[in-house]
Amino acid sequence: MKTLILMAHPHVDNSYTQQFLARAAQIENVTWHSLDSSMPFDVAAERNLFLDHDRIIFQFPLYWYSAPASLKEWEDLVLADQFDTMNFNEKQLGLVISTGQPSDAYERGGTEHFGMGEITTPFQAVALKLGMTFLPPLIISQFAYQTDEEKAQLLIKYQRYLTQEPLNNLQVKITWLISRLNQLELDEATKQRVQLIMTELQNGTERLSDLQDTLALIKREGEIDG
Amino acid sequence: MKTLILMAHPHVDNSYTQQFLARAAQIENVTWHSLDSSMPFDVAAERNLFLDHDRIIFQFPLYWYSAPASLKEWEDLVLADQFDTMNFNEKQLGLVISTGQPSDAYERGGTEHFGMGEITTPFQAVALKLGMTFLPPLIISQFAYQTDEEKAQLLIKYQRYLTQEPLNNLQVKITWLISRLNQLELDEATKQRVQLIMTELQNGTERLSDLQDTLALIKREGEIDG
Repeated sequence: MKTLILMAHPHVDNSYTQQFLARAAQIENVTWHSLDSSMPFDVAAERNLFLDHDRIIFQFPLYWYSAPASLKEWEDLVLADQFDTMNFNEKQLGLVISTGQPSDAYERGGTEHFGMGEITTPFQAVALKLGMTFLPPLIISQFAYQTDEEKAQLLIKYQRYLTQEPLNNLQVKITWLISRLNQLELDEATKQRVQLIMTELQNGTERLSDLQDTLALIKREGEIDG
Repeated sequence: MKTLILMAHPHVDNSYTQQFLARAAQIENVTWHSLDSSMPFDVAAERNLFLDHDRIIFQFPLYWYSAPASLKEWEDLVLADQFDTMNFNEKQLGLVISTGQPSDAYERGGTEHFGMGEITTPFQAVALKLGMTFLPPLIISQFAYQTDEEKAQLLIKYQRYLTQEPLNNLQVKITWLISRLNQLELDEATKQRVQLIMTELQNGTERLSDLQDTLALIKREGEIDG
């Protein structure tokens, strides 16, 4: 699976969030593409990039409850002429949105009045229109106030958002984490501890799998009885 | 009351809808301002225009469930630096949105999946953020298929949307219509018929006013008894 990050930010040099994400995105099969520095758009080149990737990420700071103008310009120009009526049902659309407000500001009754789900409706509608699978948005709240540990967790969450397939599946998440742990270069003592953690994770995954089988069996029996 | 129409359309010469609305908007105290032909924006001039008007209209064809990029660019640049934290509680924000789909496409369960209220959430959030009163959007569906009579009704509805204050009040609506009828230049026979209609409208308004007084009285008595 190949992932394309369409990053919209008019002042990326001032954005610690985007610089952090840019470093985190330096992994295999992930393409980082800055929209503001690609304007005016070469529409044919943009379409080729889009076609060449499976998971498309709209990534941006929330400006006036939407993306910066550059991303809208990209949508208006690239998703036009025939392209807007094509069906991309093997592609996925994800959103990575950074905000300067705490996460509870974007809930009904929060200080911003509307939930993030309502605010991002236009993007979900774009995904539906194009036949794409819409991924639950990854919201990054107040990056500047995050501790080092929170940033480390964000890094993992972000890399999973870019590369884990399918995205929301606990067993796949554990397999993803184990493969990441295997890639680490560690000293012998740490290696042994990590090995223990991986064994535990693997055992947990197997127990989980057994439980799911049992659950499925019970449900089937319930249906036969019912 | 002064009204500013911020019209966003990248190809206005091809838009019969916007040309029709431009003619309809040639009335007193209404300023028509094309955003696409004002780019790159003179931010200070745009802010002065905004400050100088009471009712601001974002007017555009629906592109990807939002406004064309030029309006977003206007928001990103004009509503920035201090301006984004000011309170404009004496101003109103309205939306005039044209769509190529029938109106029932933009309802939950409709072919576009989401309601126009959900789709326009980001604009309502902008109004709330700036302390402005958000007006119920005026949606123009499939203008090209409208009959002459439907277009005549749209013209009245649009002019009311631009100038009637307050917007959603039946008595004010009738007063608005009577003042419009008075401005018409008519032959003697038509004048007499229009005069009759106006008298009926005025009588109706007075009866409505009486009924509202009675209703208020009943409610007050109910509260005293309860």
